[in-house]
Amino acid sequence: MYEQIVERLRDSIQSRQLADNLRLPTNRELAAMLKVDRSTVSRAYFELEQQGLIESHVGRGTFVRVRSGAAQEARTTEPVQSMVWPEKFSRASQTAFGILGRQPAQGALATNSISFAGGIPSEEFYPQEEFRRIVSQLARNDRSAEMFGYSPAEGDLELRRQVKCFLTEQRIPADDNELLIVSGSQQAIDLVTTTLVDPGDVVFVEEPTYFWAILKFAASQARCLPIPVDEHGIKVDVLESMLSRHQAKLLYLMPTFQNPTGATLSLDRRHKLLEVSRRYQIAILEDNFVGDLRYDGQPLPSLKALDRDRDLVIHQGTFSKALCPGLRLGWLVAPAEVSSRLQLAKRASDLSTNSMAQVVMAEYLRQGLYEKHLEHVKSVYRRRRDTMCQALSTHLGSRLSWTKPEGGLFVWAKLPSGCSSRELLAHAEREGVSFSPGDMFFVHGDRMDFLRLSFIQHDEQTIETGISRLGRAVDLYLQSRQRLERSSNLVHSRGNESALI
Amino acid sequence: MYEQIVERLRDSIQSRQLADNLRLPTNRELAAMLKVDRSTVSRAYFELEQQGLIESHVGRGTFVRVRSGAAQEARTTEPVQSMVWPEKFSRASQTAFGILGRQPAQGALATNSISFAGGIPSEEFYPQEEFRRIVSQLARNDRSAEMFGYSPAEGDLELRRQVKCFLTEQRIPADDNELLIVSGSQQAIDLVTTTLVDPGDVVFVEEPTYFWAILKFAASQARCLPIPVDEHGIKVDVLESMLSRHQAKLLYLMPTFQNPTGATLSLDRRHKLLEVSRRYQIAILEDNFVGDLRYDGQPLPSLKALDRDRDLVIHQGTFSKALCPGLRLGWLVAPAEVSSRLQLAKRASDLSTNSMAQVVMAEYLRQGLYEKHLEHVKSVYRRRRDTMCQALSTHLGSRLSWTKPEGGLFVWAKLPSGCSSRELLAHAEREGVSFSPGDMFFVHGDRMDFLRLSFIQHDEQTIETGISRLGRAVDLYLQSRQRLERSSNLVHSRGNESALI
Repeated sequence: MYEQIVERLRDSIQSRQLADNLRLPTNRELAAMLKVDRSTVSRAYFELEQQGLIESHVGRGTFVRVRSGAAQEARTTEPVQSMVWPEKFSRASQTAFGILGRQPAQGALATNSISFAGGIPSEEFYPQEEFRRIVSQLARNDRSAEMFGYSPAEGDLELRRQVKCFLTEQRIPADDNELLIVSGSQQAIDLVTTTLVDPGDVVFVEEPTYFWAILKFAASQARCLPIPVDEHGIKVDVLESMLSRHQAKLLYLMPTFQNPTGATLSLDRRHKLLEVSRRYQIAILEDNFVGDLRYDGQPLPSLKALDRDRDLVIHQGTFSKALCPGLRLGWLVAPAEVSSRLQLAKRASDLSTNSMAQVVMAEYLRQGLYEKHLEHVKSVYRRRRDTMCQALSTHLGSRLSWTKPEGGLFVWAKLPSGCSSRELLAHAEREGVSFSPGDMFFVHGDRMDFLRLSFIQHDEQTIETGISRLGRAVDLYLQSRQRLERSSNLVHSRGNESALI
Repeated sequence: MYEQIVERLRDSIQSRQLADNLRLPTNRELAAMLKVDRSTVSRAYFELEQQGLIESHVGRGTFVRVRSGAAQEARTTEPVQSMVWPEKFSRASQTAFGILGRQPAQGALATNSISFAGGIPSEEFYPQEEFRRIVSQLARNDRSAEMFGYSPAEGDLELRRQVKCFLTEQRIPADDNELLIVSGSQQAIDLVTTTLVDPGDVVFVEEPTYFWAILKFAASQARCLPIPVDEHGIKVDVLESMLSRHQAKLLYLMPTFQNPTGATLSLDRRHKLLEVSRRYQIAILEDNFVGDLRYDGQPLPSLKALDRDRDLVIHQGTFSKALCPGLRLGWLVAPAEVSSRLQLAKRASDLSTNSMAQVVMAEYLRQGLYEKHLEHVKSVYRRRRDTMCQALSTHLGSRLSWTKPEGGLFVWAKLPSGCSSRELLAHAEREGVSFSPGDMFFVHGDRMDFLRLSFIQHDEQTIETGISRLGRAVDLYLQSRQRLERSSNLVHSRGNESALI
């Protein structure tokens, strides 16, 4: 038993799920949590201390040992009276900090470098002129109180009305007490986490999945358990078997044009997922962050639309991807009793959402400008996706494998086995192109052979140039690997020779 | 020992700090937390169950009993397959919900009712025309990327520059890596809580203090311990004695024009507070939500300005009170190592703050419009404060006691002992006036004899009318109390008579 504890903690420390200086539970607390004797925990902690992974301080507790020596040195040389902040940070902050470390460092990129990393919509389509006009119109009609006063915590009345309209078109019913305007998708995830997740609760996520969702769930001290995704979305048979083994609180998924894979959950699986989730009474958070951006094929109903009793699914959406991210506007649709709790979490977080953005956006929707915008950007993004996939075929041929997504923002590509997207990124940056390394999207950050490419941000010419640079980077990377292999074979054979002598 | 547990839990349940249906820790967990035997906890839980305060379900746990029968009935008659959400809510949500119950119900007020409840600035001074003009100017200069793209997590560059300028005038140094733009004051409190506070940590607050701070700290499962405030601010001698007895993580206070009392911490106490806090290594969160709104007397340096080593104080401010609340813009200044953690918490909460509001506000500041605005509203609010205090003297004479604040938003008034501001509120609403009942601002919601009156929202004529209505309401309330006392004396004397017979 104590070996299992040692193993699990060692894995968590080495994968940086447990951050430097994180205070561990006391013997007593951990024994209670795991339902084992305190002596078992003591033995496990002793073993881990022997291995140099943790350190105990009498009266202060047991901590994850600092892995670079610098922080610890600084601490001992400071005068006593100075505030020692690292001791003050919460577990939430320590955990988040550990996971944040997976983000690639922002190197000094060449000025003409092309980034396919972020999922940011194209700046040329931001609604500057429309918003300027609407702000003037609103000022003429004196909408001062709505634009500059507090908006209701649940959101501006007119914006809620407009959002309900297009949700209705998607067959998502949303009563007044079911709809909450939020400051973007990330806040939706934050509010749902605050409302539902206690430390130690199990949260299922797709794997791979959205980086900031992993970070948020882990920071809340949830146990984040991954369910694999294939080309038809989350594997519901695996989900079912996991549900039978774990009492889970929440399933977070992006059924349509998933981040990062671009996969869409098939209709069969949608039905099956709802049935299984109901049977096991697990709450579903459906993140529909790019549902609007479909370029081919027939739209599928969202899980929320398929949830006939309207009691199982919390649905979230955003204007950040289809329009622009700087407004920080999104929405949550949840059963009334949940929605009132989400609204309470919203008030405790930031009272309410920026009023000016809401009022102007409501008017933008009311004038039918959003629909027109969507039609336009969809045709542009469709061509960009096609250009990227064509360029990948041309410049990377069989060295990368990927599936063309039917919508959304991303192409998810796999390197030959044994390759590392981090190593490739170093080559790519020298060639003037970058992407998101795939390990960021895995709960334990341990799959190195994927990369995520966003195709919406640049025009077709730039995409073509960027992918040709990526092709060169992959060539150089594979060549360097071959050289390395040859020289390591050489070392190996020399080693063998010595052994023979 | 077990009686202490019973008493503490009973108090927490009856004061609704522990909400209906809240899942309590298991015997094992609570025993570990309190460092007592499991049998002691079992005995305490048994006693509480006998008293009808909690209920146990084998295999599911122990819960706070639902106090109105309705919710429980609904649960047992629903089909098994429906989602039972109340079982899913986190402790954070349950605790917040319990405390939210203290907010006065939003009754259907008469249309000409005058509210002194909220601390909302006067709508007539909202910057509609200036913002319209600035949006047009910005559109002409094509600031699309800054206005509609993601702003940096730490805030728009130009807004940070402008905020640094006026912080410098207040002798608050803020390096680039010390300043973070946030979505208003409540988010500042939220981010500091997430970054520093673990469940069980002690947080000191002024008493009385800001309602949504109490709620946030309690929801984070902190132990929120009150330190009394008098006319010179928080009582630092009490703080010192509390610090010697509790290992505390954070002190949250509003040194200038405190909410709700309007009190300002004296300079002597400021120095003493910093000295004591440094000695005990407690982090200080200084909420300077209305520091700009001084109507009389000399400004005092903020704690941040007095913190010479710049390592002890986290300082927060907002545009919500001096300008308008709907922009949701505020700032945090913290030592660099803390600021980077706050920024991480910000990203995990909502990625970044609304860009359009930031860019427009930066330009508003750059053009010197904020300073002009401040001068104007200060002269208006000064007159409104004087009008309210004069009207209180005229219409309420000796029945209320209060101190005239040197700035800020509020007059904090005390009713004669034994009176309840909740009972008064019922009378007041019938007379067409309302206020915030004072118990909301106490950690345990247990002081009934105070009320908070905001003087900034209405013009002088309306203030005069509202306070005269309040005077009538107090008269009626005191008369009804006298009648009640007389009849209760009657019952008493009758009772005595019967006893004599």
